Amino acid sequence: MTANARSSLDDATIKAHLNNLTKPPGSLGKLEDVAISLCRTQGSLAPRTRPRHLAIFAADHGVVQAGVTAWPSEVTGLMIANILGGGAASSVFAHQTDTTLRLVDVGSGSPTHAPSDGYRDAKIAESTANLAEGAAMTVDQLEAAFAVGVEEAEWAAISGARLVLAGEMGIGNTTPAACLGVLLCDASPEVMTGRGAGADDVTLSRKLGVVTQASARAAALLKDDPTAAMAEVAGFEIIAIAGFYATAARLGFTILVDGFITTAAALVAEHRAPGTVRHMIAAHCSAEPGHRRMLDHLGLDPLLDWSLRLGEGTGALLALPLVDAAAAMVRDMATFADAGIEQ
Amino acid sequence: MTANARSSLDDATIKAHLNNLTKPPGSLGKLEDVAISLCRTQGSLAPRTRPRHLAIFAADHGVVQAGVTAWPSEVTGLMIANILGGGAASSVFAHQTDTTLRLVDVGSGSPTHAPSDGYRDAKIAESTANLAEGAAMTVDQLEAAFAVGVEEAEWAAISGARLVLAGEMGIGNTTPAACLGVLLCDASPEVMTGRGAGADDVTLSRKLGVVTQASARAAALLKDDPTAAMAEVAGFEIIAIAGFYATAARLGFTILVDGFITTAAALVAEHRAPGTVRHMIAAHCSAEPGHRRMLDHLGLDPLLDWSLRLGEGTGALLALPLVDAAAAMVRDMATFADAGIEQ
Repeated sequence: MTANARSSLDDATIKAHLNNLTKPPGSLGKLEDVAISLCRTQGSLAPRTRPRHLAIFAADHGVVQAGVTAWPSEVTGLMIANILGGGAASSVFAHQTDTTLRLVDVGSGSPTHAPSDGYRDAKIAESTANLAEGAAMTVDQLEAAFAVGVEEAEWAAISGARLVLAGEMGIGNTTPAACLGVLLCDASPEVMTGRGAGADDVTLSRKLGVVTQASARAAALLKDDPTAAMAEVAGFEIIAIAGFYATAARLGFTILVDGFITTAAALVAEHRAPGTVRHMIAAHCSAEPGHRRMLDHLGLDPLLDWSLRLGEGTGALLALPLVDAAAAMVRDMATFADAGIEQ
Repeated sequence: MTANARSSLDDATIKAHLNNLTKPPGSLGKLEDVAISLCRTQGSLAPRTRPRHLAIFAADHGVVQAGVTAWPSEVTGLMIANILGGGAASSVFAHQTDTTLRLVDVGSGSPTHAPSDGYRDAKIAESTANLAEGAAMTVDQLEAAFAVGVEEAEWAAISGARLVLAGEMGIGNTTPAACLGVLLCDASPEVMTGRGAGADDVTLSRKLGVVTQASARAAALLKDDPTAAMAEVAGFEIIAIAGFYATAARLGFTILVDGFITTAAALVAEHRAPGTVRHMIAAHCSAEPGHRRMLDHLGLDPLLDWSLRLGEGTGALLALPLVDAAAAMVRDMATFADAGIEQ
């Protein structure tokens, strides 16, 4: 079944169903909007949110050499180990929500771990090149990273997932995400450049200079060669997530989108595979100032506005029980007729 | 142990603990605020959110005769049956979140059901009197309703609950809640009077007249006899919830407060047992316009702003997994030292 066929349920039919349930019409507010999105993404009035799977894509970024981050690249590898060890926020929230978690190293400089269902070594390189000085990756590398994401979505399908989440770990990755935001939302570097995981004023100013210059280089390529334009400024994990999202949409999954980095990946996915966004629910609007602009560009209304800025898929994991509740409302509530109440 | 002793953990100690966890300090945004509230209410860095218990208090309101509602009083009884049958939003969300649910009929005009752990007949009367014409209840009735709530919190303690929620079902109950808001927040009737479960313009105008007149009568009594003032305009379920909250706080529970009606009960609880509010987390700010004013009066910052207006404890049930996540963060995340990361 294609994504289009699955999405043939129209909003009026979904709303009519919601208005027959034993509650004043519209009285569950935003949860009813979530229910509509969920039914629409699955083309069903019996939407499912289980099993669900979180793929966290990790990579390092050459642009860290340009002094744009509060933390050194070594932290990427330490956090990969922490995620695998169960001590990271993403590990804890995935456990809480019965979400399977798989860490896919698509290009970090840290040591590899033993293969398992929870870990895959799919390194394209040990890091991107420094996008402050030239292209972050080659077009071949971009396609290879995208293909890793495609494979991960197919793997999720084989393992039975119905709803998928993506997360990321990569010190420095708000810089490529900001560049992609400038490139694909036609936004200014000032709007898209924020403090990431804690940049101070000097670092932020340096980061803005890098984003301004690199996104201008990419913009010059966009019309004639959009893949080269994205390769100029992207990160391996961002491109892998784009492949994951595009394929998840094609396979008819509901996609719960996380924060700034993953939304940059959503922009890439929508650019390469238009219509992907119709399978997306935005979990939250983060503290990173450009995130709202990206969500607006995609037409996504976030569920939480909680100033989250951690990444790893944590915002999507936090919002997941709200999507579960929307699904339960649609599936399990009695109708007015069931309850003998005249409307 | 008293509520005060349990609450002796100071915010600085809690924040220091959160800043040692493997995430950029503050990067979980509002979830960190929830974690601080949760630790504070339990006086512990290992807060628990299970087992959890929802008590739904139901009652009817004589003021429905004054034409202030969109639905007739019979719906209270039909919805009690629907909640007990598992088809109501509250039943569905309670099931989803492993929350035990008990419906306590504290004064409805509907038939009683067979006693069980999930149901208690504790009717004070078949309805309050019409507060548009005189006192809604006697002071003795108010004390009896409060006592039912006290017993229910004690019952929750015996059954092992660590976190409690209250909900309500009672056609017409936004009118007494609005009167209590005017009385206890020093707010205008215009701010406190909203559309409830769907009042049209004519009904809303009539409701505003009733709230204005009845709350003025109550206000005249407040200084000399606050219990009589509250009895003038309250509802049995609202007063029972106040007793439930006051006792839950005394017993050291975390209380997750739901919407407009339960927040009116929180105002009553705080008035009768000052300090109750320190055990509360506000789940959401509802579509009812006076709710924000009540929350501000109590100093509570709601987790969701989702335009919910259903009641039955549904908003608290929706927010519950977010509180679970806050607890899991505090308890289960690795520290930077664990992960070998220098801050």
